[in-house]
Amino acid sequence: MKSLGILSAGIVFAAALGTVASSDDHVDEAVMKAVKARQAQMQLYAFNLGQLGAMAKGEVDYDAGAASAAAGNLAKLTSLDGRAVWVPGSDDATIGKDLTEALPAIWSEGSKVGEKAKALSIAATELDAVAGDGLDALRGAIGNVGKSCGGCHEDYRRSDD
Amino acid sequence: MKSLGILSAGIVFAAALGTVASSDDHVDEAVMKAVKARQAQMQLYAFNLGQLGAMAKGEVDYDAGAASAAAGNLAKLTSLDGRAVWVPGSDDATIGKDLTEALPAIWSEGSKVGEKAKALSIAATELDAVAGDGLDALRGAIGNVGKSCGGCHEDYRRSDD
Repeated sequence: MKSLGILSAGIVFAAALGTVASSDDHVDEAVMKAVKARQAQMQLYAFNLGQLGAMAKGEVDYDAGAASAAAGNLAKLTSLDGRAVWVPGSDDATIGKDLTEALPAIWSEGSKVGEKAKALSIAATELDAVAGDGLDALRGAIGNVGKSCGGCHEDYRRSDD
Repeated sequence: MKSLGILSAGIVFAAALGTVASSDDHVDEAVMKAVKARQAQMQLYAFNLGQLGAMAKGEVDYDAGAASAAAGNLAKLTSLDGRAVWVPGSDDATIGKDLTEALPAIWSEGSKVGEKAKALSIAATELDAVAGDGLDALRGAIGNVGKSCGGCHEDYRRSDD
């Protein structure tokens, strides 16, 4: 009975590791690298926008240097060339909902993803131009960046609500 | 005995989840966000440099557009303002070796991290200027980027060799 206990423990342990570490085994390695790279890029959007948002909401004190740095980063990040990370065949229906929230519509005929990405980049550049000019200037320009994020997520990112 | 087996399985399961998902519970949330953001940035360095390296090594065909895109991305990524992600107190001795490979020397008196980061940014910009001009031009400029990566990692990233 004792060995059965150890065996069942081993199975559960292996299952736990499998869920966390190996669920992308069925996906082409190059595709998975691209998916992880775009997720890293989104994470950096969120990190920089989060800092600006915290100032805009008054959660942290406005700091012109920090605001400029974060907005400058966001302007650069949103202007990265995305062809290598948004590869066809990397949508949630193809590789699985646990690995990405990217909807097939991104790659479908008539997709507006390109212009939405451009709108985000423009909004971030406009924010960058004024983020160091005071809290009111930051507040006036950050809204368009948030709207651009949402405008793309609404149509092209799976919602689990 | 059966319930003992289930109990031991439960403990192992909890331990496995703890190791994978919750080992940063002891670290300040803002510090952990900064650490994850710089790791995302490094991941994007690797993704773009990996594409250029594969062309340079002849593993994939040279493509001027793809090479320019990756090198342009690398030039932007290596010029991001890093103050918000390289926060004091986020070295491996402080937060733990399982969470970061960043050595305390990064933040110590006389640290050369700033100039090493600048050297990387310059090397990436020089690579960006020629990456679209053919395979020989790419090969001639990519070495300095690799050296700049290594030059920083040698002194400031923990080696587990």
